[in-house]
Amino acid sequence: MTGPVSSISKAVNPFCEMIGLEFTEFNLGYSKCRLNISDKLLNPHNVLHGGAIYTMADTGMGGALYGLMKENETCATVEIKINYIRSIRTGHLVCTTRVIHKAKSVAFLESTVKDHEDQLIATATGTYYVFTPKKNINDKG
Amino acid sequence: MTGPVSSISKAVNPFCEMIGLEFTEFNLGYSKCRLNISDKLLNPHNVLHGGAIYTMADTGMGGALYGLMKENETCATVEIKINYIRSIRTGHLVCTTRVIHKAKSVAFLESTVKDHEDQLIATATGTYYVFTPKKNINDKG
Amino acid sequence: MTGPVSSISKAVNPFCEMIGLEFTEFNLGYSKCRLNISDKLLNPHNVLHGGAIYTMADTGMGGALYGLMKENETCATVEIKINYIRSIRTGHLVCTTRVIHKAKSVAFLESTVKDHEDQLIATATGTYYVFTPKKNINDKG
Amino acid sequence: MTGPVSSISKAVNPFCEMIGLEFTEFNLGYSKCRLNISDKLLNPHNVLHGGAIYTMADTGMGGALYGLMKENETCATVEIKINYIRSIRTGHLVCTTRVIHKAKSVAFLESTVKDHEDQLIATATGTYYVFTPKKNINDKG
Repeated sequence: MTGPVSSISKAVNPFCEMIGLEFTEFNLGYSKCRLNISDKLLNPHNVLHGGAIYTMADTGMGGALYGLMKENETCATVEIKINYIRSIRTGHLVCTTRVIHKAKSVAFLESTVKDHEDQLIATATGTYYVFTPKKNINDKG
Repeated sequence: MTGPVSSISKAVNPFCEMIGLEFTEFNLGYSKCRLNISDKLLNPHNVLHGGAIYTMADTGMGGALYGLMKENETCATVEIKINYIRSIRTGHLVCTTRVIHKAKSVAFLESTVKDHEDQLIATATGTYYVFTPKKNINDKG
Repeated sequence: MTGPVSSISKAVNPFCEMIGLEFTEFNLGYSKCRLNISDKLLNPHNVLHGGAIYTMADTGMGGALYGLMKENETCATVEIKINYIRSIRTGHLVCTTRVIHKAKSVAFLESTVKDHEDQLIATATGTYYVFTPKKNINDKG
Repeated sequence: MTGPVSSISKAVNPFCEMIGLEFTEFNLGYSKCRLNISDKLLNPHNVLHGGAIYTMADTGMGGALYGLMKENETCATVEIKINYIRSIRTGHLVCTTRVIHKAKSVAFLESTVKDHEDQLIATATGTYYVFTPKKNINDKG
């Protein structure tokens, strides 16, 4: 996620490609992404796996934060908490994410996941760490 | 995830199959699952996507809780919070999950994700709701 | 917190009295509470202790949920996550809480804490368990 | 919380004094604090207010992190999530806190709150931001 805002939709994101997650909107501190529910994304209870829903939030937060970072900066997820409101097994989901506050190194974000009937499926809040990468970027913070 | 404990490893879990997540151990209130990191699971920063790590915790919690439920009960994730400690891009991960407390309807669980060198990658805590399904199981709680 | 909605402001809440926390508004699934910051509430960094801010959220959630419960029901906090946005050391805080979703036994709530200049100080999300008390109410869920 | 480790127990903490919270043990990346439950700390359900339990975790985390910081550094709570396991109304609580990981600017901590019979009451995980204060320390991160 380095480069101008306009380029984020071209960023290679193998995991999101695998599950079929796509960004549909970007703006400074804002993003929307979409996931079509297919049988491949279900869990043993025959509903959409919570990991797929969570991935919308985590990915959406990275996308929303992206436009607020300087060109040489990158970011890492510090923590996310997700609350699940309803299960779902067909249709598609839209995840809307907003940067609520961004200081120099720490950003706080909120995501809301709704289904195709605009019903609330999950909400998530998360913290990201923004930094200028050095030699070893594996260590957070 | 209905049926005897021994059958959980045979439960159909399409999302976990897609990403390559496998249970390696079960016990009452305990589970271990494993994920081999491949290029398909990376994010735009070229490290393992946080959604894949999270999926280990969410899946591991379901597996650990499974053996403590009655035959006609099922469960749903209420919430999970995950903290990421280190990024990783190769090797494999092991997620160890324990049911810390289970009351009649609510269970509290903890997961720890470590890499192949036993370094801590992430920890998660979560709440599950245990219930006997009726007509409409889409509504949590 | 049993009895009609109008009586909640008369409910004895020793901990809130000790720190000076007061409800200023109630409605079904909604509450507002207020805290005047005094020197007695500060931490060693000389700013308002995070525990006092958290107490606004936890108390506000109980108040917002109260009007949605049946007469013989009670509730218990399952979990709350709070994110702190800014420190504060003078003035007063207002915490606004909404029940986002309530099923039979589980409710999900959000609180926002702002200062007297309407700046965001903290946000919290929480899960409550709603139940009809029996002999031993000490065990959650 | 500036000064040598040994001085932390002398640090003025008005909010903790008000509720009766005391540190009983310190070490690098570790702390123990204790709270005697009195009627003044109860909530309308006549059990210990969740805000008092939370304050043990938030305070304990600050104490555990303190010894790992440089002399000119300070810290701020980024977020804490607490899960409540059991209610309690008499006796005392002990909160044990460990720094699980500390990078340059971000630390991850875990707290466990137990009652006088060693029963688990609550667990919390939190993130702290460590920084060298400048003019305006009110803005996190």
